[in-house]
Amino acid sequence: MVDPIITLTTDFGEGSPYVACMKGVILGINPAVRFVDLSHQIPPQDLHHAAFFLATAIPEFPPGIIHVIVVDPGVGTERAILYVETEGHRLLVPDNGCWTLLARRAATPPRVLRLTEPRYWRQPVSATFHGRDILAPVAGHLSLGLDPHLLGAASDWDSLEFPEPVREPGRLAGEVVFVDHFGNLITNIPGAALEALGTGPVQVLIGGQAVRRRVRTYGEAVPGTLVALISSAGLLEIAVVQGNAAREMNARPGTPVVVAGREV
Amino acid sequence: MVDPIITLTTDFGEGSPYVACMKGVILGINPAVRFVDLSHQIPPQDLHHAAFFLATAIPEFPPGIIHVIVVDPGVGTERAILYVETEGHRLLVPDNGCWTLLARRAATPPRVLRLTEPRYWRQPVSATFHGRDILAPVAGHLSLGLDPHLLGAASDWDSLEFPEPVREPGRLAGEVVFVDHFGNLITNIPGAALEALGTGPVQVLIGGQAVRRRVRTYGEAVPGTLVALISSAGLLEIAVVQGNAAREMNARPGTPVVVAGREV
Amino acid sequence: MVDPIITLTTDFGEGSPYVACMKGVILGINPAVRFVDLSHQIPPQDLHHAAFFLATAIPEFPPGIIHVIVVDPGVGTERAILYVETEGHRLLVPDNGCWTLLARRAATPPRVLRLTEPRYWRQPVSATFHGRDILAPVAGHLSLGLDPHLLGAASDWDSLEFPEPVREPGRLAGEVVFVDHFGNLITNIPGAALEALGTGPVQVLIGGQAVRRRVRTYGEAVPGTLVALISSAGLLEIAVVQGNAAREMNARPGTPVVVAGREV
Repeated sequence: MVDPIITLTTDFGEGSPYVACMKGVILGINPAVRFVDLSHQIPPQDLHHAAFFLATAIPEFPPGIIHVIVVDPGVGTERAILYVETEGHRLLVPDNGCWTLLARRAATPPRVLRLTEPRYWRQPVSATFHGRDILAPVAGHLSLGLDPHLLGAASDWDSLEFPEPVREPGRLAGEVVFVDHFGNLITNIPGAALEALGTGPVQVLIGGQAVRRRVRTYGEAVPGTLVALISSAGLLEIAVVQGNAAREMNARPGTPVVVAGREV
Repeated sequence: MVDPIITLTTDFGEGSPYVACMKGVILGINPAVRFVDLSHQIPPQDLHHAAFFLATAIPEFPPGIIHVIVVDPGVGTERAILYVETEGHRLLVPDNGCWTLLARRAATPPRVLRLTEPRYWRQPVSATFHGRDILAPVAGHLSLGLDPHLLGAASDWDSLEFPEPVREPGRLAGEVVFVDHFGNLITNIPGAALEALGTGPVQVLIGGQAVRRRVRTYGEAVPGTLVALISSAGLLEIAVVQGNAAREMNARPGTPVVVAGREV
Repeated sequence: MVDPIITLTTDFGEGSPYVACMKGVILGINPAVRFVDLSHQIPPQDLHHAAFFLATAIPEFPPGIIHVIVVDPGVGTERAILYVETEGHRLLVPDNGCWTLLARRAATPPRVLRLTEPRYWRQPVSATFHGRDILAPVAGHLSLGLDPHLLGAASDWDSLEFPEPVREPGRLAGEVVFVDHFGNLITNIPGAALEALGTGPVQVLIGGQAVRRRVRTYGEAVPGTLVALISSAGLLEIAVVQGNAAREMNARPGTPVVVAGREV
């Protein structure tokens, strides 16, 4: 039997003592845990970024792994902390909707419990650091085989609103939803939209500017070219070959992107 | 029996080949080691930051774990390298006082040995990278069960000076000692001071400006509010709700913070 | 028997969902894998930086470990993906020469296979993310003991050009090849050159400016001094004691460095 894995996703920053504290608390409960850091660079309190991150990363993991997520602008208020099972993935997460996109991908509704049993928490529970005081110790206990139904009762949960692309005759109006480390712009427009708009050639516009080249992969165009392609997650992506599209196009999450028939 | 854990705390930066070298050396001695990266973002040679980091993080870990710390402005000079046991935590650390705050928290004096036995070092020992050449291999050997007394003899050690808050009639004058990734300002003023100043209302001033709201947790005030609260480590903390207090108040370690009775 | 180790070196950035995806894919194939992150901060598509990084880090690891490297400006084009064995180290790497310096250090030629067997890949293979779709799953299978000859046939490989120092009478003209997190400047000039230029005193010039102090380690000169020393990898290094030489000298990879006899 392999040692249990706990992944960590936070907005604490890479060199944060808070991440270290959480690992210490978990190892104090189960010294056999193996950590996999997913990201500690979610922009502070950015639930939409977290949602996109989780929907991209978590589905690649095998079921059963415990994923601890601490992006938590509401820490210490009445917002709940949840235990979630979705498609076999197990999450511990504040109830702020940052796992909404993950839930939407699932074929079946999630199982959601609200953590109410302080027996599995670090005492005393601080008002500002539930990652250390609730999520970490509960993750430690779950990794030892604790039955989740002992954590609390079934609960509903808050979801987050996401911008949906708007379909109009001959065009689809969406926006940038994620900017990766290379400055590549991932949009909320399904890659299939590039084919579905009709038989004529299709134009992609970002912030009003036309993207001239459509490619299958970056290396098909010379460095510096602004290109449109289908991302590894199946979404319309806009990139500058060996450059930084976010910087060069002054784009960010929310920047409008339109896919249109040429006649528009 | 679980595989041994070695944690790493350095000022080498996240993408440093030097961190990778240390991990390689350790695995060459004990391939069963599990690494837990605490931070590689201690600001270069910043012993005070390291001290605060270690005093926050290490106490959360269970005893027995080996913590390797490489913040080492004196590398290659006559400064010693130490093996330390404090409250069951085991440290390998240059003798520059960066673990002073951790030692102060302990109920009993630490056991301190000075590493002098080159048999457990990587040869030849370079003048500029004792992390790779001394601390990493010694950590590897300790993780295999080496008796620490074989590393060298008992030794005294250098401690670091830290600013203490100054108590005056009706007020306590301290300073910012740590800025976290969110820009929250942790001070050297115990949270209890907020209660201990008398029966009247208490005022917190940072850089001469009054902090108007006192809260238990960030979410109690609207975004943008400058608030004072008690940090998860029990210290007076100043924050901007969903903002960055360090940036907005132009504050950093050393910025004066005063807790005063309202009549002052 | 210890659990297998897979190291990861990418230019994806620390908080990238792409790194998380790769870890998920690997754990889906072999849940016993232990990850060691070497760096996710290789500058985007910077093959020379990657080459220096790998030549510094990989030799410190014990043989047998699987090192996955994803710095891949040619993703999706005809460039091959390779399985490499060199001095017992096992690499999975795009065929772009980023492991050239590592190969040069080896006493014997590497064994190189070209990955052509899609049975061990994630399907469907995207055009833009071979790290997730080819390198990660192949690493997972290798960690289970797969015989590498099942991955594909022997292949030649592309190497990368590196600037070599130019030897002239009484002087050696090289350049900065790597800047570390402290701003220390590592050059392509062997440290031995400082001794080999003759009996007289030797002068080091960077960007035309003389480095006055030669030291064995940083702590031998007062803070702020520009010094020359031999790096922990045996190369000429230029540093500012407790400062940042890259910033203060406005230097970067490519900045000329000359070692000359005093009479020049």
